[in-house]
Amino acid sequence: MSQPHLLPHHDGSPLYVPDPVEGRGSTVRVRVRIPHEFGGVPSVILRSVVDGEPRFHQMDRDTWRPARDDGATWWTGTLAVENDVTGYRFLINRANDTAVWLNGEGIDHLEPVDAQDFRITAHPAAPDWASEQILYQIFPDRFARSAGADTRPAPDWALPMQWGDDVVHTGPDTPRQLFGGDLDGIVERLDHLERLGVTLIYLTPFFPAGSNHRYDATTFDVVDPLLGGNDALVRLVEAAHARGMRVVGDLTTNHTGDTHEWFVAAHRRPGAAESEFYYWKDAAQEEYIAWSDVPSLPKLDWTSSELRRRFIDGPDSVVARWLQPPFNLDGWRIDVANMTGRLGDVDLNRDVQRMVRETMDAVAPGSVLYAESTNDAAHDFTGDGWQGPMSYSAFTRPLWHWLRQPQRGVFHHFGIPYEIEPRYSAADVVATYRRFTAAYPWNVRTVAMNAIDTHDTPRFAERAGDDLQLVAAGLSLALPGTPTIFAGDEFGITGVNGEDARAPLPWGAEPHLAEAYRQLIALRRSSRALQTGSLRWIHADEEALLLVRETEDEAIAVLAARSATRIVVPISALGRAIEATLTLGTLEVAREGDSLILTTGGPTFAALGAARVGSADLRQETAATV
Amino acid sequence: MSQPHLLPHHDGSPLYVPDPVEGRGSTVRVRVRIPHEFGGVPSVILRSVVDGEPRFHQMDRDTWRPARDDGATWWTGTLAVENDVTGYRFLINRANDTAVWLNGEGIDHLEPVDAQDFRITAHPAAPDWASEQILYQIFPDRFARSAGADTRPAPDWALPMQWGDDVVHTGPDTPRQLFGGDLDGIVERLDHLERLGVTLIYLTPFFPAGSNHRYDATTFDVVDPLLGGNDALVRLVEAAHARGMRVVGDLTTNHTGDTHEWFVAAHRRPGAAESEFYYWKDAAQEEYIAWSDVPSLPKLDWTSSELRRRFIDGPDSVVARWLQPPFNLDGWRIDVANMTGRLGDVDLNRDVQRMVRETMDAVAPGSVLYAESTNDAAHDFTGDGWQGPMSYSAFTRPLWHWLRQPQRGVFHHFGIPYEIEPRYSAADVVATYRRFTAAYPWNVRTVAMNAIDTHDTPRFAERAGDDLQLVAAGLSLALPGTPTIFAGDEFGITGVNGEDARAPLPWGAEPHLAEAYRQLIALRRSSRALQTGSLRWIHADEEALLLVRETEDEAIAVLAARSATRIVVPISALGRAIEATLTLGTLEVAREGDSLILTTGGPTFAALGAARVGSADLRQETAATV
Repeated sequence: MSQPHLLPHHDGSPLYVPDPVEGRGSTVRVRVRIPHEFGGVPSVILRSVVDGEPRFHQMDRDTWRPARDDGATWWTGTLAVENDVTGYRFLINRANDTAVWLNGEGIDHLEPVDAQDFRITAHPAAPDWASEQILYQIFPDRFARSAGADTRPAPDWALPMQWGDDVVHTGPDTPRQLFGGDLDGIVERLDHLERLGVTLIYLTPFFPAGSNHRYDATTFDVVDPLLGGNDALVRLVEAAHARGMRVVGDLTTNHTGDTHEWFVAAHRRPGAAESEFYYWKDAAQEEYIAWSDVPSLPKLDWTSSELRRRFIDGPDSVVARWLQPPFNLDGWRIDVANMTGRLGDVDLNRDVQRMVRETMDAVAPGSVLYAESTNDAAHDFTGDGWQGPMSYSAFTRPLWHWLRQPQRGVFHHFGIPYEIEPRYSAADVVATYRRFTAAYPWNVRTVAMNAIDTHDTPRFAERAGDDLQLVAAGLSLALPGTPTIFAGDEFGITGVNGEDARAPLPWGAEPHLAEAYRQLIALRRSSRALQTGSLRWIHADEEALLLVRETEDEAIAVLAARSATRIVVPISALGRAIEATLTLGTLEVAREGDSLILTTGGPTFAALGAARVGSADLRQETAATV
Repeated sequence: MSQPHLLPHHDGSPLYVPDPVEGRGSTVRVRVRIPHEFGGVPSVILRSVVDGEPRFHQMDRDTWRPARDDGATWWTGTLAVENDVTGYRFLINRANDTAVWLNGEGIDHLEPVDAQDFRITAHPAAPDWASEQILYQIFPDRFARSAGADTRPAPDWALPMQWGDDVVHTGPDTPRQLFGGDLDGIVERLDHLERLGVTLIYLTPFFPAGSNHRYDATTFDVVDPLLGGNDALVRLVEAAHARGMRVVGDLTTNHTGDTHEWFVAAHRRPGAAESEFYYWKDAAQEEYIAWSDVPSLPKLDWTSSELRRRFIDGPDSVVARWLQPPFNLDGWRIDVANMTGRLGDVDLNRDVQRMVRETMDAVAPGSVLYAESTNDAAHDFTGDGWQGPMSYSAFTRPLWHWLRQPQRGVFHHFGIPYEIEPRYSAADVVATYRRFTAAYPWNVRTVAMNAIDTHDTPRFAERAGDDLQLVAAGLSLALPGTPTIFAGDEFGITGVNGEDARAPLPWGAEPHLAEAYRQLIALRRSSRALQTGSLRWIHADEEALLLVRETEDEAIAVLAARSATRIVVPISALGRAIEATLTLGTLEVAREGDSLILTTGGPTFAALGAARVGSADLRQETAATV
C-alpha cells in the first residue's frame, strides 16, 4: 500500500474511459495502465456482468499513452453497456506470478465479490457544469441578516436572538433560537463568495417551518416570509446568476413537518385526500410513523400517486415549480434520501429517485440533483436518480480520523458509538476512500459532495485547528467530486456538534483562512485534471498521502501531510507534475536521480503541476486579508 | 489470519442467533464471542440498517456460554427484524486500542462497506430437513441403464452409444451421444446410494429434449420417454421415499429449447399466444434472443403473465405440477437462475424468484428450492425466493486453486481466462470462502450447495487425485451447506471438463472411494454441529486449515491439510474437540500443556470431536470395498 504507484490502475475518468456512454446498447473503450515495474503481463481480461452473467473479453496492448514518459504499458478493451448499470473489473495475468484482479478498491490476488466492481451507467450523467462547481453551503438563519429582517415579527415557536449571541447546542432551545438571517442577507454578501471563487450556493431549506433549520416544512408552496418570501428568492437567484453563480435548494422527500398543510389536513381526519400521504398507526389517524420517531417529522408514504403528483411528478409538482421562472433554481439537494420511500417491506426509493430526476430533466434540463445518504451510499447512486451523494463515509469521516488532534478534546463520531475515536493513518484514509467510492459510476464520483464539515457535524477547526483544516480543505478540492465548503469555514469557526457549528457568521471578524481558500479554489477551477482527471494513488503512509490527477494533457500531483515528514517517489510515477505550484504549509522539493524527495515542515497541502497557479505559506495566510 | 481463533466471532447460526425469526417486526437476540486473549472490551455495539439508515444498539455482557472453559466473553444484544432483509455488523470497542468492526468477512479496523454485512431475512427459512441432506447429483443419461432402455429407439438427434464407450468432450457430437441411462436404472441402484448415506437425489432435467443434457426441453409436461416416461418418475420417487430419500428436479426458467412446444407455436408466427413468451428481434418473429447466443436456447420473457401462469404461478403451473401427486418431487433446482428475467433494462429476477417460491409453498409446503448462480450469488439469495445457491465462487473454485496438483496438467478455470491457474494457500481458501458467503443469511448458507465438482466442471480427481479429492469432499461435508456429490465421485472418475466428467458410471469397477465417502457422510449425518453449528476458523496457513463447528452442546473440529504439516493451537480454542474421531490420511494428535499439536503425514481430512464415529486410514480405504 505504501507504493500504489507500482500497481495497475483504472478508474472511470475520461483518461480510462475515453468514449461517452451513449445510452444502453452502446460500447465504450476502457483502458488499464500497467507500470513497467509491475512486470511482464501476457494478457489483460475485461470481465463485465451482463444480464447477471459474467463475460470475459481479451484486451489489447495500446500504443496510446497520455505522456511519452509515463513508465507504463496501456491496454484497451471494449465494454458493452447492456444494462442500466454494468459492473466490470479486470483480470491481469502475470508472466511469472499469480494473476491479480483490479476492481474499484484496487488490486486483489483473490477473486473479489461483485459489490466492489467498477460501475458504468447507461443513464445521462450529471450536467457537465456540475464537475466544475465550488459548492458553498448556507444555513439561511445563520449566514447574514439584511435590514429587512428587523421588520419581521418572530413566530411563536422562535426565541429571537441577536447576531452576536451564543448558540445553544443541546436542549429544547436548540431548534428555537432565531437569529434572523435571510436571503437578502446572502445577496449582500455575494461579493465575499465571488472573491472566494464560489460558484454554487446550496441553501438548506427555505420553506416556512417550525424551527430554525426548517427541515420540518409547513408548506412547499412559498418561501418563508422570515427569509424574505418568494421575491427574496427571486432576487437571490437573479443576483447569483448575474455573477455566474448557481443556486440549489433543499427538499425533504422522506418527511414533512407535523405542521405541514398536508399533514394538518389528514391528521385525525380519516377520509381526507392527504390521508394516503402518511403512515397512520390507527384508523383514527392519530398516531403515525415519523423520522427516527421524532413526532414533528411525519414520514411520507410514496405509494400514494397523489403525493407523487403534488410533490415530484410533472411540471406542476413542487420539484418542478422552483426550477422554473420566476425562481429558476439550478437543482435540489434531497434530505434523508437514503430513507426516502423505505419502510418495512416497502422500498420505493428507486421509484422516487427516478421520478424526481425525470421531472427535473423535463422542466429544467441541466439541473443537478444532490442527495443526502450519510453512510455507505454507493449502491443507491447508480446514475438514474440521485446524482451527487452527500455522504460522510468516503471522505469526511476518514479525514476526521486522520487529522483530528487528540488533545483537542472534542469528540463527535456522527452517530458511531466509538469509545475512543479511531486514529487513522493517511494510508487508512486512502483505503477507506477507495472502498466507499469503488462502486460509484464515475459520473457520480465527479459530483459527490466532498465536505470536511457541514451543518450536521462539528466544525473541522474544532477538531483539528486551522492548519490541518486547510490540509483537509485542500483534499476536498483535490479529489474527484464537488468541493463543499460550509459557510464560515473560511473564518475558522469552531463548534462541537452540528448545532454548535451553526453559529452566525462573524462578519466583523477577519476571515483569516479566506485567502488560502481562494488560492485552493483558483487552483481547482483552473485545472481540468482536478475536475475530471483520473485519480491515481502514488504514496500513502502514516503521515502523508500523495496522489496524481491526470487528463490527456495535464497532470497535477497533490500532497497532503499531517506533520513534518519526508517521502521519496519515482519521478516517472508523477507524470510531469514535479514542481510545486501551490503550497499551504512548508514543502521542500528535491530531485535525486530518478526520484523526487518531498519534505514537509508540518501540516502541509501542496499541489505540484505544470501550470503555476500561485504560492503561499500557510502561516503568512493566517494574517492575510480578503 | 493465521490465528483467527484470537478474534471475535459471530455468525448467523443458532449458537449466535438463538431465537427463530418470526417474520418482520420480530426481534432476535444476537451474540458475539470475544476470546479473552483479544483484550479488554468496554463495549460492543450492534449496528443494523433499518429503512436505509444505520442504527446503533449497546450490547450487554452475557453470563451464558456454550461450555465452561471456552475462554471467551459473550455479549448479547437485540436485533429488530424490520425489513425483509436486515444487514447488521458489530463495533467492538477496545480498552487500549482502536475499535474493530466485525462483519460477514471477519474483523476490520477500518469502517466497512454495507455490502459485506451479516444479513438476516424475515422470510421463512428453507425447510428444516434441508440442512440435514446429503445431495447426490445424477445426470440421468449417464448414471445407470435399465433393461427397459434397450426397447426404446433413439431419436433422430441422438448417436446411440454402448455403456462402455468413450465420451467425447468437444465438438458437435458432445450433446448427441446417448448412453441410455434411465430412471429405472436409478431405482435399481438405490442400494448403492443408501449404503453411501445419500438422502437427496438431484436429477438434472428429465423432460424430453434435443440433447443428452436435456437443458433444451421440448416440453415441461411429460417425462422423457427415453428415461421411462412419467411412470418411471413415479416409481423412482416412490422407491426413494420408501428409503427415506428425497428427489428434486431441474427446471430452466431462463430459457426453453428451440424445439419446445411454446417456442414452436410462436416462432415465425406473429399473433400466437406464446409470442409474448420470448424476445423477438423482428416483427416476423424469425430472430430471437437466446442464452449466450446459442440458438437452441431461446430466452424467456417474464413480463408475460401468461408465461407466469403456465410455468410458475399457481397450482396448475409446471412448477406446481411435479411437486404434487402422483409425482411428489421434493423440490427444484433452477438452471441459470442468475440470468432469469434479466435482459437490458428489464430485471424481473426477484419477481420470478418470489413467484416460484410462493407457488411451491402453496402446493408443497416444505419443498426446497436450489438455484444455479455460478459466481457471486450473495445478493440474489435473500431468503424470499431461491433458497440454496449452486455457486462455485465460495467453495468450489478456491478449493480447486488450493488442491490442484500442478503436475496433473488439466486446467479448467470455469470460464475465467487465467493464463496460469492461481495456486491458493489454505488461508486464501478461508478468505475467499468468507468473502463470498459474508452476505448470505444463515438460512441460505445452510442449504448452499457445496460441490467439489458437478456436471459442468472437470472431475476433482482429474485435477487433484484421489487423496486430495477426499480432503475436498471432507470439507464439503464439514462446512455449512448441502454436501453435494456428483454421481461417480465415489469411483474416482476423472474428466477434463464438464462433458468429459459425464462418463457413464463404471458399475463393474470398484467404487474405491465409497467407504471413505460413507464414513464422511455418516459423520455429517450424526452431527447437528456439522449441519447447523456455527463455523469458527481456528487456523489457516499455506498447507492446512482448521475450523470448529459448534452448537450449544457439541463441538467438532475439522482439519484439512494438503500435505505433511504441523500446526499448534491452544486447546481452549477448540472447545472440547480434541480427539480424532475420523481420519482420512494420517494424523498424529499430541497435547503439550495448553496446546494441541496436529501433525499430518500427507493429504489429510480429520474430524476431532467428542462423539466417536469411526476411524480409517486413507490408504487402507483405497482398497476397501462397499
